[in-house]
Amino acid sequence: MEIKVHGMGMSTCCARVLLCLEEKGLDYEVVPLDLTAGAHKQQPHLSLNPFGQIPAFEDGNVTLFESRAINRYLARKYEAAGTDLLRSGSLVESAVVDTWMEVEAHQFNGPIYKIIRQMIVNPIYGLPIVEEVVEAAAQNLGKVLDVYEERLGTHKYLAGENYTMADLNHIPYLVYMMRTDRAIIVNSRPRVKAWWEDISSRPATLKVIESMMPA
Amino acid sequence: MEIKVHGMGMSTCCARVLLCLEEKGLDYEVVPLDLTAGAHKQQPHLSLNPFGQIPAFEDGNVTLFESRAINRYLARKYEAAGTDLLRSGSLVESAVVDTWMEVEAHQFNGPIYKIIRQMIVNPIYGLPIVEEVVEAAAQNLGKVLDVYEERLGTHKYLAGENYTMADLNHIPYLVYMMRTDRAIIVNSRPRVKAWWEDISSRPATLKVIESMMPA
Ligand SMILES: N[C@@H](CCC(=O)N[C@@H](CS)C(=O)NCC(=O)O)C(=O)O
Ligand SMILES: N[C@@H](CCC(=O)N[C@@H](CS)C(=O)NCC(=O)O)C(=O)O
Repeated sequence: MEIKVHGMGMSTCCARVLLCLEEKGLDYEVVPLDLTAGAHKQQPHLSLNPFGQIPAFEDGNVTLFESRAINRYLARKYEAAGTDLLRSGSLVESAVVDTWMEVEAHQFNGPIYKIIRQMIVNPIYGLPIVEEVVEAAAQNLGKVLDVYEERLGTHKYLAGENYTMADLNHIPYLVYMMRTDRAIIVNSRPRVKAWWEDISSRPATLKVIESMMPA
Repeated sequence: MEIKVHGMGMSTCCARVLLCLEEKGLDYEVVPLDLTAGAHKQQPHLSLNPFGQIPAFEDGNVTLFESRAINRYLARKYEAAGTDLLRSGSLVESAVVDTWMEVEAHQFNGPIYKIIRQMIVNPIYGLPIVEEVVEAAAQNLGKVLDVYEERLGTHKYLAGENYTMADLNHIPYLVYMMRTDRAIIVNSRPRVKAWWEDISSRPATLKVIESMMPA
């Protein structure tokens, strides 16, 4: 297979790339990496991702890392296939997609990561959940989603009338948070809730969710 | 003036945009915003940046926010002017630029922000510097810059042989850190030090540093 994603479907950062591959209708192979054995901190993985993280990505002899950069590459290389995720045909539309991609990275990712880390990752490692950390992150995430709630009052998706990478990049952490009692942060905001119901029921999303959370 | 940056030169996120404008040789106006009076949390600023932060950006009737998204827009709209910051003529080169832009955002920005916050911002607000926070962040930043040190052994700049937005986006926080005793994190790594000396002495950088730190 030309396209290889080194990692595992359960990992949110790998799932972000799989979502893009599915929206583009591309064939790919997930090459499993044994994180418990520390394979990500050793060669040969370090030559694919020098930060010793997943995902790492290969497309023929192009190797890349960082999930959001991989997604940009896929959207550009396979622009004509499947969903038009970057709207690069229009300078202004693509700038709005970029803006909301940065919002995901710099406003949304921080607080939701803390919630997932505490509520999902800590129990896996036998660590306690620190309620105050969860609560503070939930407050911050709520403020960010207040802005989304207003935005979604005038636009169907974050970057406008079309589903784009700005929406897609949000999905992996939300999949996990929506299985906790903190789903209320989304469900208490009607337009954010409707947006989530929409983007989480896309065929590409459903397929990736399956690999994130095997039944 | 067509291009307006709402904010102030002292702000690292505004400086990131000014660096791009200077590399492109564009005319622009900085529209000062009185953060001490809370102008960023009120209209009309909130309609330019719904998160109530600086910068906000106008180019004729295009309005944007998020410094890195503004920079992408500038690099695309004014592709032929000044420095070629995204290397979009080549799919692979531009993907490598994107990868190292993501490294800046997701590996570098977190720890260096903590150092700046503690050492530069806290004193302004009369808050104490928590040494343990600085030390932990310095350790993490050191690990990230170890990867840069290796990378810069085989490439002149982070994304290859050319100065790009991947380098540029790093500059604002480094300007401030290099004025503290934590400059050692850079200076103890010879290739990172040489890279910093190079990128910080570019004419565009020198001009922006002046507006960040008036003599
Ligand atoms: N910004 C990176 C983050 C990558 C990342 O944090 N990956 C996690 C899994 S979701 C990982 O490899 N964790 C193991 C580690 O950091 O040692 C990306 O988006 O690709
Ligand atoms: N990710 C945003 C961050 C913007 C940001 O944090 N701006 C700071 C100044 S550097 C600010 O407005 N702080 C005031 C506040 O957040 O209330 C960007 O890169 O533009």
